[in-house]
This record gives sequence, C-alpha cells and structure tokens, in this order.
Amino acid sequence: MTERKHNFNAGPAVLPYSVLKQVHSQLLDFDQLGLSLMEMSHRSPEFDQVINDAKASLTRLYSIPDTHEVMFLQGGASLQFAMIPYNLGSGGAYINTGTWSTRAYKEACTIGTADEIWSDEGNGFKHVPQPEELPSLPAASTYLHYTSNNTIYGTQYQYVPKTELPLICDMSSDFISRPINVADFDLIYAGAQKNAGPSGVTVLIIKKAISRHFVGDARTPKILRYVTQAEKGSMYNTPNTFGIWVIKLVAEWVESQGGLAAIHALNQAKANHLYDVIDAHPLCVGHATDVSRSLMNVTFRMDSEDREQAFTQLCQTKGIIGIKGHRSVGGLRASIYNAMPQSSVETLADLLASFRG
Amino acid sequence: MTERKHNFNAGPAVLPYSVLKQVHSQLLDFDQLGLSLMEMSHRSPEFDQVINDAKASLTRLYSIPDTHEVMFLQGGASLQFAMIPYNLGSGGAYINTGTWSTRAYKEACTIGTADEIWSDEGNGFKHVPQPEELPSLPAASTYLHYTSNNTIYGTQYQYVPKTELPLICDMSSDFISRPINVADFDLIYAGAQKNAGPSGVTVLIIKKAISRHFVGDARTPKILRYVTQAEKGSMYNTPNTFGIWVIKLVAEWVESQGGLAAIHALNQAKANHLYDVIDAHPLCVGHATDVSRSLMNVTFRMDSEDREQAFTQLCQTKGIIGIKGHRSVGGLRASIYNAMPQSSVETLADLLASFRG
Repeated sequence: MTERKHNFNAGPAVLPYSVLKQVHSQLLDFDQLGLSLMEMSHRSPEFDQVINDAKASLTRLYSIPDTHEVMFLQGGASLQFAMIPYNLGSGGAYINTGTWSTRAYKEACTIGTADEIWSDEGNGFKHVPQPEELPSLPAASTYLHYTSNNTIYGTQYQYVPKTELPLICDMSSDFISRPINVADFDLIYAGAQKNAGPSGVTVLIIKKAISRHFVGDARTPKILRYVTQAEKGSMYNTPNTFGIWVIKLVAEWVESQGGLAAIHALNQAKANHLYDVIDAHPLCVGHATDVSRSLMNVTFRMDSEDREQAFTQLCQTKGIIGIKGHRSVGGLRASIYNAMPQSSVETLADLLASFRG
Repeated sequence: MTERKHNFNAGPAVLPYSVLKQVHSQLLDFDQLGLSLMEMSHRSPEFDQVINDAKASLTRLYSIPDTHEVMFLQGGASLQFAMIPYNLGSGGAYINTGTWSTRAYKEACTIGTADEIWSDEGNGFKHVPQPEELPSLPAASTYLHYTSNNTIYGTQYQYVPKTELPLICDMSSDFISRPINVADFDLIYAGAQKNAGPSGVTVLIIKKAISRHFVGDARTPKILRYVTQAEKGSMYNTPNTFGIWVIKLVAEWVESQGGLAAIHALNQAKANHLYDVIDAHPLCVGHATDVSRSLMNVTFRMDSEDREQAFTQLCQTKGIIGIKGHRSVGGLRASIYNAMPQSSVETLADLLASFRG
C-alpha cells in the first residue's frame, strides 16, 4: 500500500484513518449480516440503528437539548441556501464573509427579499465582524444568518452573534470542531465533507419549532419543507445511507478523542503552530485579520506566486497535498480539520519554516 | 466472513459483488494515491477522471447522442419531482401508476398546475396503461411524465409512450436494465439505489435544450435550475463523490456483462423463471396485469397473510432476505435488479415451488 499522504484538502478532506479502517473492515459484510451497508434497506432495523446511533453521538457531543433535533439531508449547504428562505420566509439578515455566505444571501434574494447587513467583500474577505462591528438589524428582519467558518478565505468567528431573532449558521467547515451552545441557534447546517464525513450528506441541528411547523408559502415544494423530512426521521425519501454510516463513525471517533472540548484544544494547538511559523517567516503573510483567523483553514501568501508554486511542488515531493489556495483567492491554504494528525501539521510546519524558495 | 445473502431488497439493493470488491480493494488507498476517494477533492484531476469515466460508460451503454448530457445530482427522484416543474413550467401531464408518480404529480401541483391524465389508483395500481389506453393530452399540456417501473407495485412499461411533447421519465427502478432510445426522451432521471449504485445520487440524462437554457420563473432558486449544474459539470457544489465512483464501477460492470441488450436478456430470463413458478403455484397470484409485469420487482400474494409470513420466515432460514412486500401493499416482492445473480433467483424459485405453508 502507498504511504498515506499528508492531506490538507479543503473538502472532501482527510478522515480519521481508524474510521476508514472500520468502513473497510465492514464494507463487504456489514455487522456479519452477509451484505454491504450499501445494499441494505434504509427501512431495515439495522440501518435504523445506524442512523439513530449517528443522531445519538451528535446529541452527546453537542449536548443537544430536547428542543432541537438532528436531520440528515442531501443537496449540500447550497440546497439549504434555498430551504432556509422557503421555510423561514423573507426578511433574512445576512452577514457576508465570503463565497458561501454570498451565495446564501443571493439565493434568499431570488426566492424573496433579504438584507445584506455587513460585508467584507471590498476588503478581500479577510475579516469577520467582531461583536461591536455588527450593525443593528433592519426592523423587518426575521432571522440572522452567518457562516461560522469561511473555508476559502480562512476566517472564522470566535464568538456567537447575539440576537433576539432566530439565529441560523452555516457551520459546514467547523462542524463538530469545538463546543457550542446549541440552544443559541435555531438552525445549524453543515455539508459533511469537512469534519464530519464524506460528501453527499448535509447535517442539520434544527429547533423543532421550525422543523415541526411549516409556516412558509403554500407553493413551496413538499421536499423542501423541513417538516416533511422531520416527520419521517430524515427518511421521507431514501437518504445517503453510506454517508450517514461514515458520519456515525466519525462522530463516535470524536467522542473517543474526548469530545468537542478536547478536539478543540487539539485544533487550537495545530492551528497555533502553523500560524506561529507563518508569522515568523520572512516570506509569508497570513490572509485573515488576527481576530478572524480560522482554526480549520490556514490561508497565507508568499511574496511571489513563483515561490508559492515552488513550495507547493516541494510539498508534493514530501507527500504533502492540497495546500494550493482556492482558485478564487490564490496563495496557499492548509486545511487542518479534526482528522488532520498533529504529525502532518508538524511535517508541513517544519518544511515551511526552512523554506526560502 | 458471513455467507453472502440472497438479497431481494427493493432499494438500496444488491450490488455486483465484483464492484463491491473493487471498492473494498481501493477504499483505503485510491489508485495508489495514498488517500481514500472520500478524502479527495472533487476538483482534483483524479476525481475528474472518475466522473468523466462514469459519464462515458453511461454514454456508451445507452449510445447517448450529443443532444443529451449526463448529470449527477443529489436529493433523489423526490427532488426531481420539484425540479421538473421549476424548469419546465406548469402544464405537465402525469400518468399515475403508483406511489412515486402520485408524488411527482402532487409536487407539480404544489408549484404550479398539472394534469393527472390517467390513474390506476382505484384498481390498486396493478396496471400500466397500454398505448391504446392513453388519452389524448389536454391542449395546454407542456410535457408528459411517466414512471417506467413501479417498484412498490411491480409494474413496468414495455414500450415508450409516443408524444410530440417533451417526454420525461422517472426511470429510478429500471435504469440501465434494458436498451432504450435516449433520443425519445427529454429527461430521464433515476435514483441510483436500485440498478446503478448506492443511495444519494440521482442520475440524469437530459436534453441540452433543457439543461442549457433556463426558461422557468425568475424566482426559482439557482440550485434548482438544471442550467446551474449543467454549466458546472454537476459540480456547482460538492457532489456525492463516493456514490459517483460506485456508479462508474457499476456502469462498467454492465458493459462487461455485454451491455444493455445482454443484461436485458438476463433480466427477462430471471423474471420469467419467477413468474412461471408463481403462475404454476396453487397458493400464489401475481399482483400486476400480464402486460404490466415488471422485470425488476416481482410482486405476488399467497392465499393468506399467515402463509406469506411463514414463507418469509422460511426464506430467512435459507439466507433469502428482502421479500416482504412494501408496507403500503403487503404480500411478497422479489426485487431482481441487474446485480441479482441468476443463482439467487433459482434458490428463491425452488423454495417457492415446493412451499405449501
């Protein structure tokens, strides 16, 4: 077998190797049932156990209260950009901190009306607003939407915005990476393919006041109403069964690492180590403002694109992949999600520290 | 390892064992790249190769002309029930042959207007209309929608309806099971979890006249417009990469079996064998009318529910699973998709032939 890469991909991203080995060991014969999980009915008691285990592990990790429930949908965060205004109506107030929050806002404007209440677009999306920078919301606002971590720009909120309105958060790229108080949120949603599993599943933690009572327009398709899937335990139609299985294993792996506080401490240590090297490096400059630095995606530039390219190529010779910045930003990016081993971060940091191009 | 079951599940369903073994052998280390496919960027050249290979194999299987293209979406057939009226507008004419076509029709009615032009609901969905039974369409009709195979009721069209209008077909449960002339259709869509792969991917074969030109209402969300995904090669947002990989392997497996004509002949032989046993059996009666019998889902009843239950239990002792009928219909159902081995059909047929309860 090929030596395992140091995989800094932004998503789909590195998964815990122990989880991959569990999937591998059960792929042909799930739980000694004589078939693959991919071949099992989503209505079987055995798959019921899998999806319930996945919900239970996430519930333990986040101490999800009875007021909220976990759902597993399809279509990525991008389908949520539409489902949110369909279910919560017009009047969303959107904080724009990058590509995905821009898309979320634009989709809300296509379906109804919405307000962009803050944007860092003119500044190259280097910053997320601090509490004192947040404007008061328009009087007609019905909910507040933000993106807790911006994968492309490497920025992240280190606090939860306070509001009297329903609070909605796209947590795609820092889901289950740190403790949060779920009760602060009406809806958390996350494409699984960063911290939680493979692509093709969207995890929701949703307040039952929203998931169990549809108040949107009567012409909203049934499949796009939260109540449709909530009443059927995410099985109104066939879910991505394989993806949900892997999410269960990943969530249980996070528990085995000590839970969210413990994984957060590890994530802080990994990120701090990389940022320290970047800050000390004569050729490197971080992209994000200090208060906005992401623990998940470390974005930085060197003093020339040629040097960035030389470093990327050097990385490849050392088994380090995925550090090229997103095509819309350029530069370099190291995505260091939960499953990124400390040793891989050290390998990258050591190589970077000694690199002079 | 446990002996492999005779798996008659309706979907997610049996997959070719050789495909499962390919997935297994590459799960930890895809193509000797040092990472799992689940950990690979959907923007990488390596995944590009996977998705292009999947499209190429389907294109060869169906001889898909240049006027059409293959897309891989999420959300199942159920999301297509909404996307179709969003993209094609009001005025769909729907033939109602079961649970899924009912849902498709109702979703179209939620979004705009639509006509149910034929229904077998009063008759217990035992029949699909034959060419001479199809009514002429309302003058304002804009497209014709039908469901080629009804998983729950075990009925299937053995012809393609003729119409001057755009023809749309939910082919979820008989996709790549027999040859068709793609040029007859404007849109074919299929949840993958019957013949084509695991759950969580919807395969579309769509006429470019539809996929490349959005003519729907301006308030349609971007994510629900075919043009959004078509212009981005199904990667407007992160697709279900693992699922697409498995579909590629399954499609290539069908090619290795001799293609659609060959697999159709095998499917006919398997179904005919089972129907012969049912017809000769003193306790059994088939659900579907003769002309409507499905090659994919063989539905039948015994003379009492107790006897059906006794047979189901006997099956379990012989490693035969998944033959209980859908909860909304009752009775028994053997789903015998492409990947169902002839030997498993024979095992079931032999057991049934000698069963007297």
